[in-house]
Amino acid sequence: MNAVLSSTLPPHAALLALRERAPLVQCVTNAVVTNFTANVLLALGAAPAMSDLPGEAGVFAGVADGSLVNLGTPTPVQADGAREVVAATRRWVLDPVAVGALPVRTALAHELLESRPAIIRGNASEVLSLAGAGAGGRGVDSVDGPDAARAAAIHLALATGSVVAVSGEIDLVTDGREIVRVPGGDVLLTKVTGGGCSLGATMAAFLGVTDALSAAVAASLVHAIAAERAAARATGPGSFATAFLDELAALEPRDLELAESRLVRTAADVTAEVAAEVTL
Amino acid sequence: MNAVLSSTLPPHAALLALRERAPLVQCVTNAVVTNFTANVLLALGAAPAMSDLPGEAGVFAGVADGSLVNLGTPTPVQADGAREVVAATRRWVLDPVAVGALPVRTALAHELLESRPAIIRGNASEVLSLAGAGAGGRGVDSVDGPDAARAAAIHLALATGSVVAVSGEIDLVTDGREIVRVPGGDVLLTKVTGGGCSLGATMAAFLGVTDALSAAVAASLVHAIAAERAAARATGPGSFATAFLDELAALEPRDLELAESRLVRTAADVTAEVAAEVTL
Amino acid sequence: MNAVLSSTLPPHAALLALRERAPLVQCVTNAVVTNFTANVLLALGAAPAMSDLPGEAGVFAGVADGSLVNLGTPTPVQADGAREVVAATRRWVLDPVAVGALPVRTALAHELLESRPAIIRGNASEVLSLAGAGAGGRGVDSVDGPDAARAAAIHLALATGSVVAVSGEIDLVTDGREIVRVPGGDVLLTKVTGGGCSLGATMAAFLGVTDALSAAVAASLVHAIAAERAAARATGPGSFATAFLDELAALEPRDLELAESRLVRTAADVTAEVAAEVTL
Repeated sequence: MNAVLSSTLPPHAALLALRERAPLVQCVTNAVVTNFTANVLLALGAAPAMSDLPGEAGVFAGVADGSLVNLGTPTPVQADGAREVVAATRRWVLDPVAVGALPVRTALAHELLESRPAIIRGNASEVLSLAGAGAGGRGVDSVDGPDAARAAAIHLALATGSVVAVSGEIDLVTDGREIVRVPGGDVLLTKVTGGGCSLGATMAAFLGVTDALSAAVAASLVHAIAAERAAARATGPGSFATAFLDELAALEPRDLELAESRLVRTAADVTAEVAAEVTL
Repeated sequence: MNAVLSSTLPPHAALLALRERAPLVQCVTNAVVTNFTANVLLALGAAPAMSDLPGEAGVFAGVADGSLVNLGTPTPVQADGAREVVAATRRWVLDPVAVGALPVRTALAHELLESRPAIIRGNASEVLSLAGAGAGGRGVDSVDGPDAARAAAIHLALATGSVVAVSGEIDLVTDGREIVRVPGGDVLLTKVTGGGCSLGATMAAFLGVTDALSAAVAASLVHAIAAERAAARATGPGSFATAFLDELAALEPRDLELAESRLVRTAADVTAEVAAEVTL
Repeated sequence: MNAVLSSTLPPHAALLALRERAPLVQCVTNAVVTNFTANVLLALGAAPAMSDLPGEAGVFAGVADGSLVNLGTPTPVQADGAREVVAATRRWVLDPVAVGALPVRTALAHELLESRPAIIRGNASEVLSLAGAGAGGRGVDSVDGPDAARAAAIHLALATGSVVAVSGEIDLVTDGREIVRVPGGDVLLTKVTGGGCSLGATMAAFLGVTDALSAAVAASLVHAIAAERAAARATGPGSFATAFLDELAALEPRDLELAESRLVRTAADVTAEVAAEVTL
């Protein structure tokens, strides 16, 4: 899951490849957002498989092009399903929802992290908590902005070999060497449950066609643009959610190509001192 | 959870307080409506936490401003989550979905009732059944109107110390001493799953800013007005559900202030004879 | 559950009867589509009960007018709930989601099949797999068209006594003697999760008012017409799902009557050689 592969693709090429391949995406995700997540994947052009059942989740993950493990509602059965997924594939995304103060999911997140996800996606509070540098947010809310988690994200990436994607007003994606900032989106995305969770699923879909850094960046840009377009014709969070699915389906590679100029790429600048603060 | 507290607030002041506080609402609720319930809370301006997992549900409830226990799909794991919630807080709402004929949830409802919810919310059949005065409805439907459950609601309130809210064409809310009737809403709310269940969550959100009677009344009025406005621009139950979320988000305290004149407050009039009919 | 009963009804008469009866429909279905399925049933005019809990699922099924067992996410608890349902009623629909390659649900499907569903509803890959004539699809996708499963459907119907409904561009419904083809619908129905799953629930609703063949045909026609009308005013999969619920609610018996001319009825033509290929 090295981010500097020959399969590096800019977002518009990744979307083109996704539409051609229609990747199968196996999701172990929380009970609140299964429906919305499946609809996001379908709208995007991927094929969702939403099994969290031991005995099946691993089978799906083994044939899937990408997988998601989201810890929003980690029942014991689902935890076993998640364990199967991470044993069956390396092309998986970890979404450590509300990790930190809550004991069950926090222990599970650290256990699953041993299996090295291709991508870790969370808000700033979750990334800070996972890197051992913060106490976690208030439930599913982030109390910190993405750049507050910049150092933690870089070091988490270096320590795990995973790409780390921090969601917020400006999304921050890093493999520990490079940082890509993805501005855009709309605040209405935070007023619909599953906005962040479905972004993890979209990243898993892009893992079926490109490397982890490209996948995380492409997914973030796709969600940002679809959210902006949806917000422009929505009258509130209900109509926004509906329009967001419409816009995901309507999004064309050329729309992404025009928006790629907004991506800001910089080198990750880390000192050994800061690195030492991170404990997994 | 006395209804006559200094924190008594009229609906418009309660909504203003809710928007300022953005209360964290911990929900143990049924699998059918988790998504809609979370979206209702987000639209309203609250922060949903939807964990029903033992080991986490109680932790969330301990820090939440209000909690909901809805018995629509009471799995053994979820029942343990519910038990944690009611042990961790007194600011919780019980929604005894389809209680009566169904053995698992009926036993669980009576067990949880021992922990004295701040608010009990149900339709007439559920309240009659919980008060021992009826056989329950046909599944999740109510076969009785709210006023048919008036005496049962009063006595259930007196026996438990809970505020009892009976949903129907005219919602009826009582603490056993006072009755507040909340007219309005729209029949389309009964054509969308989660209409009643999300009302319980909204009551839990208002428990974070005011007393139980004020919370139940404010929530009922908020849902009634949002439903009326949504119905005015909907072309069926699908577009109604979408518009309902939009209208919840758009609702302003002054909208509620104008509608408060429709509330009808009367004294609860109970005779000892009727009281004797109620067995918990 | 013989398809040639005196209660045979054309779709428009079945819809009229459904609206009058408001059948209670007990659903054991997958976690991804519970909300959408309940909303489809409510929009149609039926009353959903969505309990998959052992101790309650069988109670509901015993009083329900029709039941659904959908194997999309078959947890151990839900499997026990499903067993209760099929023991409590003969008016049930089996939806063997993604049966074939996945061991848990495949074993469960064959076990439940012993209890003889009134209707088996699936896509071509699922029907082929259930009839022992195919390896199953890629997850929930069908890799075959309905007519590819024609022989398998006929023989599955003859072997089980069930009506078999194969969903696809042209739905194919058979009791082993007669084949009814239902053209129509819209491709957007495949871009929303629960499109097929909710069709199984609608068939269960129609089982409350007519025989199995009529129920499967009426449900297929209702979904086809509602999908066409929804697609005509949708701008993508999100607005399509919303409009689909609106159109289900708005659908009148006379709309179906006008569309009944598109149904194509033929005799099932089977040779003993083909029949011998089917093993259950």
